[in-house]
Amino acid sequence: MTDKLRGIFTPNLVPLDSRGEINEAELRRYVDWLIARGVHGLYPNGSTGEFTRFTVEERRRIIKIVCQQCDGRVPVLAGAAEANVRETIRACETYHEYGARAVAVVSPYYYRLSPESVYAYFREIALHSPIDVTLYNIPLFASPIDVPTIRRLAEFPRVIGIKDSSGDVTFMCRMIAAVRPIRPDFSFLTGWEAALVPMLVMGADGGTHATSGIVPELTRLIFDLTTSGRLSEAVPLQLRLIELFDAMITSADFPEGFRAAVELRGFNFGASRQPLSESQRIDREALQKVLRCILADFGVAEAPAEGCAPRTGNLQRDKVLQVTEAVLRELRERGMQ
Amino acid sequence: MTDKLRGIFTPNLVPLDSRGEINEAELRRYVDWLIARGVHGLYPNGSTGEFTRFTVEERRRIIKIVCQQCDGRVPVLAGAAEANVRETIRACETYHEYGARAVAVVSPYYYRLSPESVYAYFREIALHSPIDVTLYNIPLFASPIDVPTIRRLAEFPRVIGIKDSSGDVTFMCRMIAAVRPIRPDFSFLTGWEAALVPMLVMGADGGTHATSGIVPELTRLIFDLTTSGRLSEAVPLQLRLIELFDAMITSADFPEGFRAAVELRGFNFGASRQPLSESQRIDREALQKVLRCILADFGVAEAPAEGCAPRTGNLQRDKVLQVTEAVLRELRERGMQ
Amino acid sequence: MTDKLRGIFTPNLVPLDSRGEINEAELRRYVDWLIARGVHGLYPNGSTGEFTRFTVEERRRIIKIVCQQCDGRVPVLAGAAEANVRETIRACETYHEYGARAVAVVSPYYYRLSPESVYAYFREIALHSPIDVTLYNIPLFASPIDVPTIRRLAEFPRVIGIKDSSGDVTFMCRMIAAVRPIRPDFSFLTGWEAALVPMLVMGADGGTHATSGIVPELTRLIFDLTTSGRLSEAVPLQLRLIELFDAMITSADFPEGFRAAVELRGFNFGASRQPLSESQRIDREALQKVLRCILADFGVAEAPAEGCAPRTGNLQRDKVLQVTEAVLRELRERGMQ
Amino acid sequence: MTDKLRGIFTPNLVPLDSRGEINEAELRRYVDWLIARGVHGLYPNGSTGEFTRFTVEERRRIIKIVCQQCDGRVPVLAGAAEANVRETIRACETYHEYGARAVAVVSPYYYRLSPESVYAYFREIALHSPIDVTLYNIPLFASPIDVPTIRRLAEFPRVIGIKDSSGDVTFMCRMIAAVRPIRPDFSFLTGWEAALVPMLVMGADGGTHATSGIVPELTRLIFDLTTSGRLSEAVPLQLRLIELFDAMITSADFPEGFRAAVELRGFNFGASRQPLSESQRIDREALQKVLRCILADFGVAEAPAEGCAPRTGNLQRDKVLQVTEAVLRELRERGMQ
Repeated sequence: MTDKLRGIFTPNLVPLDSRGEINEAELRRYVDWLIARGVHGLYPNGSTGEFTRFTVEERRRIIKIVCQQCDGRVPVLAGAAEANVRETIRACETYHEYGARAVAVVSPYYYRLSPESVYAYFREIALHSPIDVTLYNIPLFASPIDVPTIRRLAEFPRVIGIKDSSGDVTFMCRMIAAVRPIRPDFSFLTGWEAALVPMLVMGADGGTHATSGIVPELTRLIFDLTTSGRLSEAVPLQLRLIELFDAMITSADFPEGFRAAVELRGFNFGASRQPLSESQRIDREALQKVLRCILADFGVAEAPAEGCAPRTGNLQRDKVLQVTEAVLRELRERGMQ
Repeated sequence: MTDKLRGIFTPNLVPLDSRGEINEAELRRYVDWLIARGVHGLYPNGSTGEFTRFTVEERRRIIKIVCQQCDGRVPVLAGAAEANVRETIRACETYHEYGARAVAVVSPYYYRLSPESVYAYFREIALHSPIDVTLYNIPLFASPIDVPTIRRLAEFPRVIGIKDSSGDVTFMCRMIAAVRPIRPDFSFLTGWEAALVPMLVMGADGGTHATSGIVPELTRLIFDLTTSGRLSEAVPLQLRLIELFDAMITSADFPEGFRAAVELRGFNFGASRQPLSESQRIDREALQKVLRCILADFGVAEAPAEGCAPRTGNLQRDKVLQVTEAVLRELRERGMQ
Repeated sequence: MTDKLRGIFTPNLVPLDSRGEINEAELRRYVDWLIARGVHGLYPNGSTGEFTRFTVEERRRIIKIVCQQCDGRVPVLAGAAEANVRETIRACETYHEYGARAVAVVSPYYYRLSPESVYAYFREIALHSPIDVTLYNIPLFASPIDVPTIRRLAEFPRVIGIKDSSGDVTFMCRMIAAVRPIRPDFSFLTGWEAALVPMLVMGADGGTHATSGIVPELTRLIFDLTTSGRLSEAVPLQLRLIELFDAMITSADFPEGFRAAVELRGFNFGASRQPLSESQRIDREALQKVLRCILADFGVAEAPAEGCAPRTGNLQRDKVLQVTEAVLRELRERGMQ
Repeated sequence: MTDKLRGIFTPNLVPLDSRGEINEAELRRYVDWLIARGVHGLYPNGSTGEFTRFTVEERRRIIKIVCQQCDGRVPVLAGAAEANVRETIRACETYHEYGARAVAVVSPYYYRLSPESVYAYFREIALHSPIDVTLYNIPLFASPIDVPTIRRLAEFPRVIGIKDSSGDVTFMCRMIAAVRPIRPDFSFLTGWEAALVPMLVMGADGGTHATSGIVPELTRLIFDLTTSGRLSEAVPLQLRLIELFDAMITSADFPEGFRAAVELRGFNFGASRQPLSESQRIDREALQKVLRCILADFGVAEAPAEGCAPRTGNLQRDKVLQVTEAVLRELRERGMQ
């Protein structure tokens, strides 16, 4: 396959069983469910997929299961970041054999590297990977990849796109202006669903969104409406998607809010490998109530027995907004570019 | 006048004469020039207008001159931030007499205040100002105003809008979602021209952009194309506007790059009150060369004799991009929300 | 006087009367009280003194009153930042006439300027001021002054010292290493009392501390013990000073906690010009209870009737610590270098 | 052994051979060299040791080699962070068998977790580890551990200390004030050698410093002078240590500058697993020249044939200072608490 990556790729969470092991049956059922609801592709071993919390062997098993289960119905973009360049290239080789469409490689993390080092890292991978490579920029968690570095890396045919989770529309514009003239086939995916519509309007090709793992029908609808020019219908849906996103991201440490939400869609994802304290367990229940109301509003879940608060201008909402900004500020402060 | 604020308001720079005093004749000529090129309004004493570098008396004189010269042709949004609540309210009274349409009040600066203090500050102004008030959120330079605070302040009829210079499209969406249901007349202006098109798409009513003081024809054109649904024409212009914006903001400390640029349009703005060092003077010349090329490309200035580099994919551009990101990162680090 | 600035300078708050005007009688009484309790100097119109919330005329009046009242008993370091270089130089001239020992000029604020612009700004002042100048670095609120810029400015004889409020001991060491070899008379004052002992150990000459306006006896004692090598006595006092500092800085937006505290020493400072909301008024009362306990522990106030919680390892303390870190993180995020 | 951890622990780099594999012979030789020069302990698999760039099996081999080679001469503090709680506890078990004195566990990284999650993570480890645990706070690279969380974790007997790399002396004071009353045996180690003297003065028990791997004689000397009260001798050495530290940290991405420096002491550490670009290789040579001069000044290396610039007040030094601050600012911005 040599098509340009386009559309909504779901960075799927991984269900665990009661012993904390990968729940393969549930993962396969989840993949089928996502494909049936219109996602354009799968993106296992992303940040939402908690790739750092699995062992090397487990990461490979996750890709194998997802590739097998997709079975060519939709392309798989496989997260391939490992301990160092050599191990990452080995993962590229393995995922190529498994039938992934491409790999996504997060910029070096833990250490915060300079643009020159980020370039050197990806250059090695671009030269030696047998499978197409997508850069993954997530300044919140990893060394930022700046526009000139992206442009230099776009000179390697093996590098076919970027997933950017900065959420900065102007940054997306700068990338497109710098790279598209020399690589019209380069794919620009946004990882920030809270700005999906404006990103698509400015020329992005799609996105990889944790929210698409919760409401795949909706992210697909927003994509279709926006790319067919029906903006007046897409914009209100975007605002509601932000509301859902905010509720999930502020309720607990990422991606715990998304794990709570996916269970409302009928899946059993088990407990995270990151332990929770007592107070966090209580927060999680409160989130589920809020989420159920939003999902009910979208028609994909039943409203809770005790009813839902009106949607705008109420205190509940204001509290969520204040927490949202505090959390985003906190996130930004803790590591964002 | 009680119309909703809408369109592009120019935060005009103030020309100075050789003694460093306000050059009234040149300011009046500049106001006429801007109006003739299609700006929807003027916004004196904004950050671009270097309001902190003038005395109380000078700030009043600037508003008086601009209001007189506009003479009702376009509305004036007068920057009214003073030393404390009482002085700010006095400025509101004066600017009301001068015939301004509304005032814009920047959030408390120097000290970084909590949302509760920001609320208390604007509440006093909202209760006592005789003229409509626009909140001014510029987290880069002043205490941030968060969405719940904006929503609480929108309950005061005197508060009619917000100018937001965060550049964050998702933040704009959150504001609109929180406030529009209770105040359909509330005006949302973005101060970040680098995201003008996506902001308008998501529902913003216009903007106050330093760039509109340099290329008023272009910001007007982008506004008209976007609001009439001609996005495929607006998007490429937006990308070029970012290029111009980046060249000006990275060449020198804000707003010095804009001062250098406006001279290319035929005005004499004199030297800033913020002294420049020798090396900075050299940088300014280099900027003028780059700017001349971009302006020439837009057809509003002649290309320099030595010619211009091709527009995309060249080293010059890459260097600007790298500097841009470093500068924006720096700005964000130095005080952004 | 040409002595090196040395010791603890109090950045005094300004008492206001019921109409919000400067309470001259109380200010004079406060100056006498501070001098009687051992402060080495006064520092009116600092950040603690809320210089931005007074008019130009009021700022001059404050310096005049303090200089008169000190009457040569201790030196006055007068805050002299005004709207632009010319106005700042005028303030230098005026404060020279009033008999101040030196002026302190905060780095340009609102706009965040580059080192080159910061240099150009102070260079003008250094060349034209008739009175000795102290640089004031407070990266939390104003453009940071980096070590190479400090070193370049130390070449002007008029620049005699720096007040640094970064709180970074390593930064203090870098400044001393860079400047002392060429200017042994240069004075290094720290604005961060939470690190007073380690700063003095590494070679600082003293400090300007808001806390010295509340417990002048203690900051003087810590200074004397540390400079005479009695570290084992100074260190426990430093830890308690941090506790007091944290209680004041986390209770309300700076410097409101210090205003509440000074009233416990028997002064009437009135309400701030920055309005408070209802919830903030309640917080202020809670603070006064905590402060009274700490002051009682130091023997300078009576314990509240309801008694005080034990001093270490209790929940109350933990809560203060958590708030402290959140506040400091917030401050840092909002504008620190 | 149940002694309190005290003194300087070297976070050793790992030498690699020409194929990029662990160079066991050189590692053993390096361990002997460090012990002979007075380090109090070894700290393999720290950030300086690039633990994230090795595989699980390699990390175990590194600990095994270091424990064997130390052979009880000095205690080993083994870095034990793995993919998740379960794997980390397994590493604790293994390193216990190898004879390590304690393990150091970095706070969860990549994801930036809240204090509550950080607590839950360490609580699991504290309950199940068979070996003493040291918390490792490095807000630059991992989720910050705040003081209340440290205090809560200090209630577990298995948690015996903290290594803090924040560089904030006031934070060190707050930790000591909160924890020492309930756990006098708790060990406070600073990871920031640029503030070693002030940290020791305020009560820290020692440190884990990358610089001690380059000049172990010097960090030992500074420790001995400070803890025996000879501050007037320790302070000038601290200033010189900052100069060395700055030269290494600003020359290349951490810890590349330290790798270049250790080769000047007669070791062959090979190329990093993080690839370098051409321009970075040139920078590295320039660094070696600067380092050689500083080491020559300390008497542990020969001055370069072309001579050294004078030590203070020269342009070369100024440039390093400016870069230092930019780098530190950058680091802070990219992830510091």
